[in-house]
Amino acid sequence: MQITSEYLEQAIEQLAKLPGTGRKSAQRIAIHLLKQNDEYALKLANAIVNLKEKVTRCSTCGNISDKDPCNICENPKRENGQICVVEEFNDVYIIEKTNEFRGRYHVLGGIISPMDNIGPDKLRIQELLQRIGGDENINEVILALNPDAEGEATSYYINKLLKQYEVDVTRIAYGIPMGTELEFIDEATLSRAFASRNAF
Amino acid sequence: MQITSEYLEQAIEQLAKLPGTGRKSAQRIAIHLLKQNDEYALKLANAIVNLKEKVTRCSTCGNISDKDPCNICENPKRENGQICVVEEFNDVYIIEKTNEFRGRYHVLGGIISPMDNIGPDKLRIQELLQRIGGDENINEVILALNPDAEGEATSYYINKLLKQYEVDVTRIAYGIPMGTELEFIDEATLSRAFASRNAF
Repeated sequence: MQITSEYLEQAIEQLAKLPGTGRKSAQRIAIHLLKQNDEYALKLANAIVNLKEKVTRCSTCGNISDKDPCNICENPKRENGQICVVEEFNDVYIIEKTNEFRGRYHVLGGIISPMDNIGPDKLRIQELLQRIGGDENINEVILALNPDAEGEATSYYINKLLKQYEVDVTRIAYGIPMGTELEFIDEATLSRAFASRNAF
Repeated sequence: MQITSEYLEQAIEQLAKLPGTGRKSAQRIAIHLLKQNDEYALKLANAIVNLKEKVTRCSTCGNISDKDPCNICENPKRENGQICVVEEFNDVYIIEKTNEFRGRYHVLGGIISPMDNIGPDKLRIQELLQRIGGDENINEVILALNPDAEGEATSYYINKLLKQYEVDVTRIAYGIPMGTELEFIDEATLSRAFASRNAF
C-alpha cells in the first residue's frame, strides 16, 4: 500500500483513539472531514482546543465550568439545602438532564479504590465537609455514586464522616430500571429492589 | 437542565455532526477528551487542521496528496501501463489496501449524475484523455466505479470515449463477494455473476 497523504494517516491515527471509534470509523470520519467545507473542520478543531484550554473546574463543587464558581453554585435558586455527591463531572451532566434535582452538587473527582491506590485523601471529601460546616445551610446530602463495590465503600465512608454533622444522608434508589422486564434483571439488582421496597 | 460549560456544549454540537456519531456518542467523546491529558486533544485538533490546510490534490491523477504530484504518480515502479479510474480519492485508499493493483490511478472527482446536475464536463475526464494520449504509455484502462446506475452510465460513457485510443478498457469484476453464502445474495448480483462467469 502506498500512502499519498501522511496528514490523512495522522488524522486517522488520532481519530482512532477516540472511544467507540475503530480504525474503520476513523477512516470514514477523516475522509468525511476532507470532503467537507473547510469551515466545519476548523470549527471542530477549535471546539476541541477550547475544551482543553478554556474549561476549568469550579473550586466549590469540583464540576467542570467555564468560570469559577460555576453557574450552579452561583445560582441562588439552587440553594435549597440539598447537596448531591457524585463521582465525576459527567454524572452532574447526566443528573441535570433529568431536571429532577434542584440543589447543588459536589464532585468527588474519583472514588475510593485501594486497588488503584486512591484513598479518601485524593478525593474532594474535605471540601465536602467544609461546605456542610459552612454557610450553605445544607440539611441533606444525597449520595449518587455508582452501585458497584467502590461506590458502596465510598458511600459508607462518607456516611460515617457525616454523622458528626446535623444533616440527613440519603442515597438515590437502586432497583429495577424503568422500561425493562424482570426476566432481564440480574439477581443483585433484584435482591436490592426487594430489600429497598417501599409502601405502595 | 443547567449548563456549566458552553465550551463542552459547543464541542458536543460539533462532534455530533461527524458521520456515525449521534449526540450520545458526541457527549461520550467530549467527556473523554476532557478527562484525557491535554496533549492528545491538541494533537487531534492539530491533525484535523492539517487535514484541511495541508492536504492538496495531485494535478495528474486527482488523488489527495501532501504534495503535487502524489507519491503514486511520482513512483516510476508504478508506470506499468495500467490506469485505474475511480470515483473519489477514498476509492484509491480502499484499492491500495488490497496491494493488488500496481499501476496508477485517475480520480474522476465524482460520477455522471443528471439528477444532481453533474455532467461529464464536471469530472476529470478530459484530464484522463490527456494522460492516455500523453507520455505515460498507457495500454490498459481499468474502470473501477461503483456498480450502481450512475457508475454504470459513467463507465459506458468513458468506454465510448476511449474507443479512439489504442488502449484496452477493462472493468473490475462484479459478482458474489468472498465469504458470503449464495442465499444472502441479491438477484441483480447473482444475475451478473452468471453473465460474467469465466472458465474454471
